[in-house]
Amino acid sequence: MDAIEVIRAKRDRGELTTAQIDWVIAAYTRGDVADEQMSALAMAILLNGMNRREIADWTQAMIRSGERMDWSALDRPTADKHSTGGVGDKITLPLAPLVAACGAYVPQLSGRGLGHTGGTLDKLESIPGWRASLSNDEMLDVLRTAGAVVCAAGSGLAPADKKLYALRDVTGTVESIPLIASSIMSKKIAEGTGSLVLDVKVGSGAFMKDVTTARELAETMVALGTDAGVRTVALLTAMDRPLGRAVGNALEVEESVEVLAGGGPEDVVELTVRLAREMLEAAGVSGAKDPAKALQDGSAMDAWRRMIAAQGGDPDAALPRAAETLTVEAPGSGVLSRLDAYAVGLAAWRLGAGRARKEDPVSFGAGVTLHAKPGDAVRAGQPLLTLHADDTSRFERALEALDGGYTVSEAAVDHLPLVIDRVTAE
Amino acid sequence: MDAIEVIRAKRDRGELTTAQIDWVIAAYTRGDVADEQMSALAMAILLNGMNRREIADWTQAMIRSGERMDWSALDRPTADKHSTGGVGDKITLPLAPLVAACGAYVPQLSGRGLGHTGGTLDKLESIPGWRASLSNDEMLDVLRTAGAVVCAAGSGLAPADKKLYALRDVTGTVESIPLIASSIMSKKIAEGTGSLVLDVKVGSGAFMKDVTTARELAETMVALGTDAGVRTVALLTAMDRPLGRAVGNALEVEESVEVLAGGGPEDVVELTVRLAREMLEAAGVSGAKDPAKALQDGSAMDAWRRMIAAQGGDPDAALPRAAETLTVEAPGSGVLSRLDAYAVGLAAWRLGAGRARKEDPVSFGAGVTLHAKPGDAVRAGQPLLTLHADDTSRFERALEALDGGYTVSEAAVDHLPLVIDRVTAE
Repeated sequence: MDAIEVIRAKRDRGELTTAQIDWVIAAYTRGDVADEQMSALAMAILLNGMNRREIADWTQAMIRSGERMDWSALDRPTADKHSTGGVGDKITLPLAPLVAACGAYVPQLSGRGLGHTGGTLDKLESIPGWRASLSNDEMLDVLRTAGAVVCAAGSGLAPADKKLYALRDVTGTVESIPLIASSIMSKKIAEGTGSLVLDVKVGSGAFMKDVTTARELAETMVALGTDAGVRTVALLTAMDRPLGRAVGNALEVEESVEVLAGGGPEDVVELTVRLAREMLEAAGVSGAKDPAKALQDGSAMDAWRRMIAAQGGDPDAALPRAAETLTVEAPGSGVLSRLDAYAVGLAAWRLGAGRARKEDPVSFGAGVTLHAKPGDAVRAGQPLLTLHADDTSRFERALEALDGGYTVSEAAVDHLPLVIDRVTAE
Repeated sequence: MDAIEVIRAKRDRGELTTAQIDWVIAAYTRGDVADEQMSALAMAILLNGMNRREIADWTQAMIRSGERMDWSALDRPTADKHSTGGVGDKITLPLAPLVAACGAYVPQLSGRGLGHTGGTLDKLESIPGWRASLSNDEMLDVLRTAGAVVCAAGSGLAPADKKLYALRDVTGTVESIPLIASSIMSKKIAEGTGSLVLDVKVGSGAFMKDVTTARELAETMVALGTDAGVRTVALLTAMDRPLGRAVGNALEVEESVEVLAGGGPEDVVELTVRLAREMLEAAGVSGAKDPAKALQDGSAMDAWRRMIAAQGGDPDAALPRAAETLTVEAPGSGVLSRLDAYAVGLAAWRLGAGRARKEDPVSFGAGVTLHAKPGDAVRAGQPLLTLHADDTSRFERALEALDGGYTVSEAAVDHLPLVIDRVTAE
């Protein structure tokens, strides 16, 4: 077999055989298929597609390129959640300890942020002392102590995906549903979870801008998980406006702790509880405690404190704050009819909350807090947003990002429902 | 500007701007656009196409990546020919000195063979002493001495094309008319010829298998040449059967010398004379000697002998011969209704006439001679083909290549006419 034969087959709109897919992924991982050959193949896949069988084979081949974790030694079912990423999406932070408090183990491997959406690990690293890198044995210890663990994926998991993702990033081949779905699912299946809930974000602040492509991605991923023996369900959720009232690393940790203390913004609470119920159902935990109750009775907060402490963090430590703030006021009176997720995400990123290149540091205190949400009544001159940055030179470009990103009008405008749709294997 | 922006534009079926094309070719040549980015772009071009303006810009950008030759110091017009390659296509050998004998200068940069079609330089190198590599000054000297020169393109001519061609070869992105046309024409325009005749081969032994795609390639190249100020015309010619009766390096030199001596196979003579007339017309040589006459009166042969000698070759030296031969006999009596060009080309290649990798040597004596051509009457048992190789172990796989490659039947079958069509700028 050789790379040109495989590239030509897909270029000419053919179906790749299982043997071709197994060979090309293994050969690419060991360096026998060159980057320039894989990028030509990725472009051919992006333009000509792959069918369900090809995507499943592609995913399995990437899983087999590395180790597969195994939680069978644990005495309770495992559940995980993956979000395709959104502005203010801190849901993993309250969700993982909440589900642990209700009776399932949550072993979650997370990533760092790149671009306008934040990364879960960046957020947690704003907690003094907290460590993202754990060995497999340490992961198991944290899980047994706290019921949940959120940490960085080791390099042994789906190394083919790691290599391919970096390549797609520089060759204009990211936006392919078969490649996105297989990238996400190879890591999640290799992670060894028994059940998985996918939160596929839709809207300006998400990777998927419209419901149709988001549903296609969700269906593809649910099929992949199901075929691999992982009970998988997906929700399509709104990302036309930011989630919650805080966007930025420490700001989002603060809001997450409010939710775990029984408060917090309505949309964050609603989505956290809904995802927790889906995870418990998918994991098949019978007689589980109701997640809404676990947020009120302190048991989710207890799991959070154990989880943070088990990874070296101090749950009582003061969080970093940005030195400078700037308030954006409502330009008129009426209803805040639009607050664009992408504009806010880009502003937070420019304030220092995100990174432009993988090796850049993030500012833990930087970000945006929202004083009104779409649908709220506002008066001219009232604070609409507060920008947080380590230095005032950041404000100008953040304000540019927000220009045209919000509208105050006479009447409210319809938004996407928070949960748009639910996709299951049936 | 960055590579991802250019890749995305073509991936999403957009038209690349002149600035984007200029930038990406220049950046690729100096190494700022990586191979894996260019191969993704090449695949996007292959699948989504380029329009006439984009192809012209792409070609001009490749020309500007290197030097451009200039023959304005010469006192007669220049003419060149390019063939897309076929089995037994030795036409350049008699054609270049023939056109020189009729009044135009022929400065021809040629290539080596890769795969089942032979390369002009490989053929000429079977002449003892002959040198393919010349400096620009040496080229000019040979042109002044003989009127024609056939030599290897220096590395200074369209280096972007050289780099891109090597990349396309290993990434399954060869079969794109915009990329093929711009590759050929960037070299031919940079070579500085005033006029150009393209011989676009059609059929099993050619790169273009059908008349429709061959015509598309011809029209694209004629437009490119015309837009660049080179008087360009193309012929579509038959490559369903081999050209002439000899396939292989020294065997084809021998046949070319027969043509220059006023003999040789009818199809080779006919195509050589036709192409010579086209070149003289395109070059605007008024009152030129008739090429058919120049083959009979020895003037073309004189030009050949001067050209070979000026490049260090001995026109009287004995040519290399293969040590072993094997005769293939006609399986029955009737008409040789089919003799497939690809089968014969592949057999010659396997006998040692061609190379599998750029760095392989070729056997000068290896090849195939044809004792009958399609349409000829044959008797069972009469010699049909002779295979030539340096060692008998080559014969088995050559015979496999010929299996099913010829048919003897009761009646003749129609073939493509030798010259199928003529494409001009009008």
